[in-house]
Amino acid sequence: MLKVAAMRESIKENSPLIHNITNVVVTNFTANGLYALGASPVMAYAMEEVEDMAKIAKALVLNIGTLTRETNEAMLAAGRTANAHGVPVVLDPVGAGATPFRTESAKMLLNELQIAVIRGNAGEIANLSDSPVPMQGVDSRFSSENEKELAVQVAKEWNTVVCMTGENDIITDGETHYVVSNGDKMLTKVTGAGCLLSSVTGAFLTLEESPLDAAAAACIYYGIAAEKAASRQHLPGPGHFQMNFLDMLDELTEAEIKTYMKFKKEEIE
Amino acid sequence: MLKVAAMRESIKENSPLIHNITNVVVTNFTANGLYALGASPVMAYAMEEVEDMAKIAKALVLNIGTLTRETNEAMLAAGRTANAHGVPVVLDPVGAGATPFRTESAKMLLNELQIAVIRGNAGEIANLSDSPVPMQGVDSRFSSENEKELAVQVAKEWNTVVCMTGENDIITDGETHYVVSNGDKMLTKVTGAGCLLSSVTGAFLTLEESPLDAAAAACIYYGIAAEKAASRQHLPGPGHFQMNFLDMLDELTEAEIKTYMKFKKEEIE
Amino acid sequence: MLKVAAMRESIKENSPLIHNITNVVVTNFTANGLYALGASPVMAYAMEEVEDMAKIAKALVLNIGTLTRETNEAMLAAGRTANAHGVPVVLDPVGAGATPFRTESAKMLLNELQIAVIRGNAGEIANLSDSPVPMQGVDSRFSSENEKELAVQVAKEWNTVVCMTGENDIITDGETHYVVSNGDKMLTKVTGAGCLLSSVTGAFLTLEESPLDAAAAACIYYGIAAEKAASRQHLPGPGHFQMNFLDMLDELTEAEIKTYMKFKKEEIE
Repeated sequence: MLKVAAMRESIKENSPLIHNITNVVVTNFTANGLYALGASPVMAYAMEEVEDMAKIAKALVLNIGTLTRETNEAMLAAGRTANAHGVPVVLDPVGAGATPFRTESAKMLLNELQIAVIRGNAGEIANLSDSPVPMQGVDSRFSSENEKELAVQVAKEWNTVVCMTGENDIITDGETHYVVSNGDKMLTKVTGAGCLLSSVTGAFLTLEESPLDAAAAACIYYGIAAEKAASRQHLPGPGHFQMNFLDMLDELTEAEIKTYMKFKKEEIE
Repeated sequence: MLKVAAMRESIKENSPLIHNITNVVVTNFTANGLYALGASPVMAYAMEEVEDMAKIAKALVLNIGTLTRETNEAMLAAGRTANAHGVPVVLDPVGAGATPFRTESAKMLLNELQIAVIRGNAGEIANLSDSPVPMQGVDSRFSSENEKELAVQVAKEWNTVVCMTGENDIITDGETHYVVSNGDKMLTKVTGAGCLLSSVTGAFLTLEESPLDAAAAACIYYGIAAEKAASRQHLPGPGHFQMNFLDMLDELTEAEIKTYMKFKKEEIE
Repeated sequence: MLKVAAMRESIKENSPLIHNITNVVVTNFTANGLYALGASPVMAYAMEEVEDMAKIAKALVLNIGTLTRETNEAMLAAGRTANAHGVPVVLDPVGAGATPFRTESAKMLLNELQIAVIRGNAGEIANLSDSPVPMQGVDSRFSSENEKELAVQVAKEWNTVVCMTGENDIITDGETHYVVSNGDKMLTKVTGAGCLLSSVTGAFLTLEESPLDAAAAACIYYGIAAEKAASRQHLPGPGHFQMNFLDMLDELTEAEIKTYMKFKKEEIE
């Protein structure tokens, strides 16, 4: 059984330092979300300090949402330091496939670094593969069978855990997978909802669990918080949802987690 | 008659990709506002990808609010690509007149690119003219007659549509103008309210309408959303207004638009 | 007696331009907080314009939260211009001690510029001293006696006012100190709460008061706004607190300030 509530308590107790090199759109929401969870966010981008910061962090999150060449180099340097010090690294390949620069940068990071978890949507994940993938284009929809196949393929190709989020979240190391059904469609109306999940995954990776279990637990926690936030709204818009969601990331109780968690775990034949 | 409600529906149906090169203060609010409207925001700044992104976007928004030399060059490259591919370009000359760097950068972009709409306040617009303008300084107030004159002058000088926002918004192509009276003074207490309007204007420019009609419709939609947000507040401060405003950008109905729109259209003698 | 309410009224009347060179995480919250207070925020980072902007600003705030080498140079240039024009400068040494780059950058700015007020937490302040300080490490807690000693030492060493915030805020010029007890622990759950206080301090520095009195008044105003925001919450989470806090920065009345202010002023023996 996944001990999601215990894992969250442990994050709150230890306030792990999460080093984020992320895009300029979501910095504030990411930091506030990590605080709400109980973690300790830091953003540091400059080549002059990324290695020093990665060294003292408990997890490193690389997000290519508004990448520049300089940030790209800083990510590489921070990632190498993290690898050398056993600090787990999450990659969020925002917009991979939208421009060659993003696709190539994401693959470069995958080639050069040991990434513990890749967190992205199906289109982004598909663009990380060097082999043909079961898809018809960035904007096309995948069937749920195709999605599993794709996640497994990319997990094996890069020897990592893939956390592919969508209506259901698929988390796999290529051999076992979780399918998480928690979540709410309001998350698609808030910018940085995926990016923050990547950073929350970073926080769960600081615990003793395997990257597979940690990423699944992060998706479950995040999804329940979204459901509770959406159900609490007397005003149903995306503005208020954002605030309710930060509140719920802070307030979610053990009882709520146990009542609402909705996932299955399967071995891949 | 301006079909504001139909235009908004069309944005929601098509989710046009709006490429923003904007300032670091307003990225999050801009992205959330575009999502609430139903558009699909992307921020991309790096020279390595701005051309690729501008090419696939349906509109490009250039905002000089926290300009650097690098971003300036990226704006130029993105703008040239947009022009070559028929992608409409909005310019928001934030703080033109405050420093020579801003004024010169805005004029450089106007010289080098075809700008569909300039969206700014009276002081900023005045600083875009190479001829004497009817004003007494950046901070001085313009009479409403002077404001129209100024907007027309700048629209003719740069052969573009000027959308000059203030207590009333004046939108003109130098021959016809709209005066839009929707809006609420709470917008002046939220950072990035003007910047987001520029990006919303970008979304309206993706439709079949003329830039003049599109910019007027954007101002009307935006203004009504602000009025509804302000009237809904049981707590009247600027913090809650921000959330109510994002909610209303999402929720505004056809009936509300038709009931509350307040503008006139005039030919310039 | 500290005239906190009168000082705030004066800020509202004059809308002083506050030039912020701050980190990318807190730009939006900082700008909205300054607007709520009644000041006029501007962010400008580029070497091409920082001197022009610092010249026309009424205060300059330097915040090293996501420092790069380029921003570091821009801070130095802006600071020199501010010093030459009598524009007061606030330094927020975010994360000093976390990496050598941050510590050295903060000290470089202190060496090269006349800083009116340093605003930071105890760990950051401790790392600005070249002498041994009464502490055991960045994360260690200081006793309240040690904290006063530390603030006085750093104020004397750099010939400035130190505003050291925590459960109580200690503001000292090395000879006199204020201890401010207003505030609420919810501030620790919102990213940029310290950064915004630094910018609010900048706004109070534009008045006729001494930097010592101005910084103390800023802490009192800010702390009461936090208390009122926390007490107004029917939903107690950090998301809604953020909005309530912006509201209260806008709405705080003279009567509330006079009723709730909680500080003492002492001469150092």
